[in-house]
Order: sequence, then C-alpha cells, then structure tokens
Amino acid sequence: MRRMLVTRTEIKERTTRLQARLAAGGMQAALLLMPSDIYYFTGTRQNSALWVPVEGEPVLLVRKSLERARAEGLIDDIRPFPKSKELSALLGGEGDTVGMTFDAVPVQQHGWYSKVLPGRRFVDCSMIVRDQRSVKSPAEIELIRRSADKLISVFREVPSFLKAGMRELDLAAEMEYRLRRLGHEGFVRMRAFNQELFGGMAVSGGAASYGFFDGAVTGKGLSSAAPQGASFEVIRENIPVLLDFVGLFDGYLVDMTRMFVIGKLDAELRRAFEVSLQIQEAVRNAMVPGAICEEVYQQAAAMAEDTGLGGNFMGMPGEQSRFVGHGVGLELDELPVLAQGFAFPLQKGQVVAVEPKFVFPGKGAIGIENTFAVTETGGERLTELADDLVQL
Amino acid sequence: MRRMLVTRTEIKERTTRLQARLAAGGMQAALLLMPSDIYYFTGTRQNSALWVPVEGEPVLLVRKSLERARAEGLIDDIRPFPKSKELSALLGGEGDTVGMTFDAVPVQQHGWYSKVLPGRRFVDCSMIVRDQRSVKSPAEIELIRRSADKLISVFREVPSFLKAGMRELDLAAEMEYRLRRLGHEGFVRMRAFNQELFGGMAVSGGAASYGFFDGAVTGKGLSSAAPQGASFEVIRENIPVLLDFVGLFDGYLVDMTRMFVIGKLDAELRRAFEVSLQIQEAVRNAMVPGAICEEVYQQAAAMAEDTGLGGNFMGMPGEQSRFVGHGVGLELDELPVLAQGFAFPLQKGQVVAVEPKFVFPGKGAIGIENTFAVTETGGERLTELADDLVQL
Repeated sequence: MRRMLVTRTEIKERTTRLQARLAAGGMQAALLLMPSDIYYFTGTRQNSALWVPVEGEPVLLVRKSLERARAEGLIDDIRPFPKSKELSALLGGEGDTVGMTFDAVPVQQHGWYSKVLPGRRFVDCSMIVRDQRSVKSPAEIELIRRSADKLISVFREVPSFLKAGMRELDLAAEMEYRLRRLGHEGFVRMRAFNQELFGGMAVSGGAASYGFFDGAVTGKGLSSAAPQGASFEVIRENIPVLLDFVGLFDGYLVDMTRMFVIGKLDAELRRAFEVSLQIQEAVRNAMVPGAICEEVYQQAAAMAEDTGLGGNFMGMPGEQSRFVGHGVGLELDELPVLAQGFAFPLQKGQVVAVEPKFVFPGKGAIGIENTFAVTETGGERLTELADDLVQL
Repeated sequence: MRRMLVTRTEIKERTTRLQARLAAGGMQAALLLMPSDIYYFTGTRQNSALWVPVEGEPVLLVRKSLERARAEGLIDDIRPFPKSKELSALLGGEGDTVGMTFDAVPVQQHGWYSKVLPGRRFVDCSMIVRDQRSVKSPAEIELIRRSADKLISVFREVPSFLKAGMRELDLAAEMEYRLRRLGHEGFVRMRAFNQELFGGMAVSGGAASYGFFDGAVTGKGLSSAAPQGASFEVIRENIPVLLDFVGLFDGYLVDMTRMFVIGKLDAELRRAFEVSLQIQEAVRNAMVPGAICEEVYQQAAAMAEDTGLGGNFMGMPGEQSRFVGHGVGLELDELPVLAQGFAFPLQKGQVVAVEPKFVFPGKGAIGIENTFAVTETGGERLTELADDLVQL
C-alpha cells in the first residue's frame, strides 16, 4: 500500500555517516528538529525530534502522530515525546556537546532544549547536516529523475495552453494544476530564513524584471504582500515568457526553466539566450568532483562579461545575484551553491540546478535552467528536455 | 497602478502602538526580521530588517530589492542594508535592551546580530508583536472579508466538479486552480516552527483520519515526505468529503471548511455534523471581549462530551488536539488560540477561525469552519456562506 521511498539500509548508512561526522566535529550527539532533516534520517516527517548519538542508536521522539511515525519510520527506536522532566535522562548527559542546526532552529527552541537538557553545550551542526545531505545516493538521484520526468511532461504541454492575452497568473495556474494532478506536493521546502516560494514562476516581459529574493528572476507577484512570481500582467506577443518551475514529487524536487515566445524575440534577447546556453554548457563541463564552486561561478560570470552582457547577468543591473546554480533535493536551497564566496569543492553525487539568466529592465528575463548531478565526467543532466526557445 | 493595501496613517499607528508596548516591556527598541512582521509595520515585504526604536522613527534596512522597498514602503527611512561594521552606530547603543521575535528567528541570525551589535541585550518580543497583530483594524477586517468572498465563490462551484471516482488530489487541484486564478498567493504563511501547509485540504472517508500536525484533520497526503492534505485515494459515494481551504489574497487569509457527500451520510456522521454546528454557534456567542480563550475551548469540549462524541472531537481518538479555533490574518496560526492552556482574554477585533470537527477512524472527518471577528455582541461572521452539508 505505502510506497517505499527509501530503504532501511540507506537510512542506516546515512546515520552512520552522520555519527562519524559529529564525532569528528567533537560532538557526542545531534538533536535534529527540522522536518527535512528528520525525514532524511528516519523516513518519516511527523512532528518529532531526532536524537542521534555518535555511538548507539538514534531515537525519534514523536509529538504527533506516533502511530504514523511508527508505520513509516525506518529506525528502531520510535517513542512518544516524553515529559520535559524525563528528557534529560534520555538524551545524553551533562558535559555533552550536542549539535543543533542553528541555521534554521528558532531561538525559543534552542532556549527550551537548553533548559530541559542542562549541562549540554549546544553547537551548530548545520553545515555537517547540509553537506551530508548535498551528496545524493543513486536512489535519491533516481527520485529526482522521476520528478524531472513529471515536470518535463508538463513543460511539453505548454504550447497547448500558452496564449497571448492570458495573465501571467493564468499561465502559472495552468502549470500548477497539471503538476498538482501528477502528484506535486504543493509546498516547496526552503531552508533559509525568510525565503518563501510556491511552485514556480511564470513571468513575462517587463514584469519579469522585479525582485526581492536572492535569485536572478523573481517576478512582480500579485501585491506588495506577495511580491514574487506571476502577476496580473497580461502576456503579449513578441516578449520573453520565462517559466521557472519546481517539480516536487515523493519528497524530491527538481528545478527547470524554459523560455517561450508568442511570435519572435528581438536580436538582443535571442543572443542573450544563446549565451545562457553556452554558459550552461561550460558550467556542466566544469561540474566534476574537486572543482571549486566559486570558480565555476566566476567562469560563468566572465563569459557573461566577455559577451558584453555582464551588467544583465543574474538579475537587474545593480541588484544582481552572484551565483549561477544551487543544490536541490528535499529543499530548493540545498548545498552546494555555485556562488561567489562559496569556496568548497564539488563532490560526486551532488545535484545542482544551473540557471544562467539575463535580465533586461523593461524588456524581460531570459535564460535556461536544468538540474545536473556531479560526476567524474562533468554534470549529468537529470532534466532531459530540449533547451530550445519555444516559438509559438 | 499599485493597489494600496494599507495606508501610511495606519502604519504610523501600528508603529506607535508597538513603541508603547516595547517601552512598557523595558526595551529600547525591537529588531524585526520576520517577513510578516516587516510587512505589517512597513507595507513592504522585501528582504530586509526593521529597526523600531521606542523613540524616533523606524528604519528599514534593505538587502533586496531597495528600489521596490522604497516604492512600496510606507515609512520614511528606507535605506540599503549597511556593512556590518556600520550597523552598531546606526542601531541604538550599548546597554540597550532590544526585542527580537525568538519564536521564529533562527539561532544563527540571533548570533550574528549579537556579534555586530555588541553590548545589546536581546530579549524575546514575540508575544508583544503577535498580540498586537492579533487585533485587526477595520481595514484589515475588510481585506479578510474580501478574501472570504473569493474563497466562497470557489466553494459555491464545488458541485460542478466534485464527482465520485476522482482522487482527493484531483479535487484539491480543482479548488487550487480556481483560487489561484482569482489571485490566491499560493504560499500560506505559517509562523510556528515546523509547520508546513499549502492551500488547504481535500480529504474523504478513512483517508481523512490520519495526522501529524496540530490540527483536527490532517489528511493522508501523497507520501511519507508530504504527509498531509489530499491523497491519491479515490472519492466514493456515501462518505464525507471535507474541504478545508485557505483564501489568501492581498496578504490576508481566511479559513473555511465545508462538507460534501455524493449520496448520503450515515446517522452517526449526520449527528456529529449537527453537533459541530451547535458548538460553532456556542463558540460564536462566547466570542466577546474579555472571554477567556481556554474557557471557550472547554465549553466546546464539554458540549462534545455531553453528546457522547468527546472521544472523536478535534482529532483521532488518542491524538486529539485541545483547541477549537485559531487566529488568522497575515499568517494561518496567529493569536488568539481557543485552546487548553491559553488563558488570555479575547480582544475586540481579533479574528478567529472556529473549526469544531469530529474524526471517526476508518469513516472520515466531519465538521465546520468559519472565520469570525470578536465584537461586543459575539463573533461577527466574515465568511457568509451557508453551513449546510452539501448533498450531491
């Protein structure tokens, strides 16, 4: 009845790797509270907290639903969340150094656990967890491929419903409706504080060149309260229509962008599109284990500069983002980031959405996005759909 | 061109009220980082931090987009986010006690600001901000009414698309598609750590009686990775179909549940539905300023008990939630909560989604939900649609 999305063996391997990293970091345990982390290490995402000691078995403490956590969870020790007085006897001892993901856990949670677990020193294990999760197993890559195939099937249908005169919002609704019926989860997990995103963006022409968040293209959105994604603007002929959508099925997401136009784009935009394909190919070639993330970005930025498009690369002039790709998996903003300041080497099995884009104020946004896995021979494309600008 | 969703005068009044509360709490300022709080006090939700001193003018420091924050923002001092070295000179002085919303701000953010603002003592101002935001102005209530009218228009269409043989997921997609085209923002803001929700739930029969989150009805969801809301289960005849959806337009949301059945419900379910209406009416009558939230819940729970349905009230037997209503506004989980342990008095202008529901394992969930404003004469209904079970 229930579809198995991960095996008990893989969960065990993940736990063992985490334990080794925690030990190397001088910790006696980690207390994981983020849903995505708990799901990764247990196979269930109920309301719960996961204790992972460096020696011994992890314990999942479940607030709700215990029954469901036990039915889904792939670790042995799953029990009700105890009274706060009983927690201290259960989770390590005084003097322990305990990892917690400070990137996402609120101050109140940290304060509460500090009180009920006296004598523990909590330290930040965000990078340990995020780095481990960034490297995908073959089974995870297969799940991402399956998400890609569903997203691609919807991209293929776009010519049947994209019409001049419809609003960006209508186009977004058509995409979302089809994705949803295929099993899209509807809620895209983002980890970074303050990030908010739904399933994607349908933006066109000048309305594409607005922004708040740390991406290249944000969209105008519906109001000052929801200032991203599709707007009420009408899609016209001969302007770029950018569809940047997330396929999210069975927990794993994939990220793609394709360009459409009803009619024809002008020479400047067509040229920028060609440059984005060239940059994508250069980045793909560079995606081998050991390549330094920020150097991959710098190479991309230099290509944009060399073609005279440096001022339009990855955002509005003056508000450009200094990245060209981001990790994807359970969350849309996983490691690694192909970004300035991110001086870490790529690792085999990391999965990265590469999205070279250009923004022309008043005219619109143009570019490409595909999701690749890092391999010894460069990025392996997981999103098998032609990159071509689709002219209707 | 831009729709004004709040006036400069109202933003000014909100700031003045917050300043008085911060001063009464012994603070010299608050540093607000949550998007919903920043939007409430400025009218813009760009990537930014808001400094509100108890004396003088607030300052919005914008990472991105400064241009858009200036176009939308309704406070005077909006400037680029400075270099970290310059922050300390700008934001108060050593010895200041500074409020921060510890309920939502991650440990890393708190740590970073503690470092760049040395000598400040950060304290939790979550309850001050949340309590203030819980009391809606007439203009906010009007926005919630407008959201309600759009949501209601979609509920009215349900008989045209609800069919036996469709999956819960298909029904959810039909709801979401129509809401989206009306301008639903797609992303429902929740404040509590670990909460995740998309636009609503379409659940039926036994698949309705699963749960993880702190609501009465959760739904089975699509997988262990997304364990809430609509599932792949097929909707059959003579089982309860529960539609619990959020209308979210222009920043403000409203929450409603209606029941449908293709065919007929059995006597036990029909009776439970009648009891949910009686409880709703009792709660509505009790929603006057000064009423104690947990007493309103206790009255509702006692009514469920008196009718012999206490074991099914607000959740699966053994996993019941001890609440009957929650505040709504910019977020789905605002104050007040009509819940055990919440011993605060209701205030005029608070807006609460009241949702008495019953869960029968294997048979399904049934109940009602409407959104009411607290007034001197009891709850004023903002969701003007008949409560009747719709039989198709």
